[in-house]
Amino acid sequence: MTGPNMIDWIAFDADDTLWENEVHYRRGRELFDQLMDSYPPHDKLEQTVHEIEISNLGYYGYGAPGFILSLVEAAIKLTDGQFSTQDIQTLIDYLKEMVSSKVQLLEGARDVLELLSSTYPLALITKGDLRHQQVKIERSGLAQHFTAIEVVSDKQPETYLQILAKMGISPTTFVMVGNSVPSDVLPVLEIGAWAIYVPNELTWSHEQRDSSSIEHERFLKVAQLRDVPDAIKRINDGEVRPA
Amino acid sequence: MTGPNMIDWIAFDADDTLWENEVHYRRGRELFDQLMDSYPPHDKLEQTVHEIEISNLGYYGYGAPGFILSLVEAAIKLTDGQFSTQDIQTLIDYLKEMVSSKVQLLEGARDVLELLSSTYPLALITKGDLRHQQVKIERSGLAQHFTAIEVVSDKQPETYLQILAKMGISPTTFVMVGNSVPSDVLPVLEIGAWAIYVPNELTWSHEQRDSSSIEHERFLKVAQLRDVPDAIKRINDGEVRPA
Repeated sequence: MTGPNMIDWIAFDADDTLWENEVHYRRGRELFDQLMDSYPPHDKLEQTVHEIEISNLGYYGYGAPGFILSLVEAAIKLTDGQFSTQDIQTLIDYLKEMVSSKVQLLEGARDVLELLSSTYPLALITKGDLRHQQVKIERSGLAQHFTAIEVVSDKQPETYLQILAKMGISPTTFVMVGNSVPSDVLPVLEIGAWAIYVPNELTWSHEQRDSSSIEHERFLKVAQLRDVPDAIKRINDGEVRPA
Repeated sequence: MTGPNMIDWIAFDADDTLWENEVHYRRGRELFDQLMDSYPPHDKLEQTVHEIEISNLGYYGYGAPGFILSLVEAAIKLTDGQFSTQDIQTLIDYLKEMVSSKVQLLEGARDVLELLSSTYPLALITKGDLRHQQVKIERSGLAQHFTAIEVVSDKQPETYLQILAKMGISPTTFVMVGNSVPSDVLPVLEIGAWAIYVPNELTWSHEQRDSSSIEHERFLKVAQLRDVPDAIKRINDGEVRPA
């Protein structure tokens, strides 16, 4: 049984935790499928797109530019070079739309941040393209709630350790809130911090992982963002038990 | 006349200050020109490439992915869509080469950082694609000399103010070393800090600005990286005069 804890810092993931993100990738993929309909069908379309996407993460990291560059490359390969430059330009135009589109906040995001920022310093820890993430943070109208904003290229245990060291925070008093088990939950538990998992029905397959097997005394799963303040209260009151 | 000052923090730019960068962009541009040689000549080639590059900064920010995406777009436009997908793939392959190429340190970089890091905390403040910059920092073998590393999407006066505030540094004790007048010198002087300009013959036109008109008591221009320690000594000794 855990005694009372005191959370000192709360960090939030951004994409698909505070605002919509994956929906833009799904639409990009639908656009790609529509364009591909004009070319002879290919029985390894899914596999080829997936392989190029994963292989290109090593070159481009996460984010919209790498996503579209991978679709362009897949289209050229899948059509034996017959994919038209007009269709390539259509994909590039969609990339520009992605990185300049409005930020749609998820239900409860503003209220929860307003409430929690009155008591806690909040951090935003988000992964992806630096420019695009900064534009979204600015457009979200939420920036003023955060004491610290970190855009990272990946979320490994070391990533979190470096951020916490820089801010002088002990892992035991730190909680991360996010929609991704591999990015927001597992590395955070590994360094001895707390994780609150807020599932989102639209989460990139690469970030999806079954959470039902996670039994950890510092892991909490909530149904929606509005349940986060209560989850933090439960941590502080020492009421958290292994799920 | 300025009295003795004490520099507390020294920050370095990375691209074309500590390691080669612009050379990869020049080569990319040469590759583009070679590919374009197979298509009917266009009398507004330079202008079109430049316009698309500048307009796309708003979408992609600085860095290799945006550079190549702009060249692809320019090629499609300049050839009325006749640019081949094979040539587009060649540009994409070059992007992958850019973001995975070896880091070539500039003359004196390692020595100067070793020397200065024995006395001062050093920061690296670099602009561009987050993933690519982090890969370069890692590959450079210089990361251990830096107390703080900041990858930013732009270098405005506010950018520097935010970094200094985060680290609790007073501008008057901070000096920035870099090869870009608009990015490493002017915004730094504007916030009341010191700037040491190390010209590099290969500097992107967008970052080039005549430094001869800068008369400022906190501005120093040196011929090479190896002159930086002496320039800092001159600042500390109060020997700096408006150029």
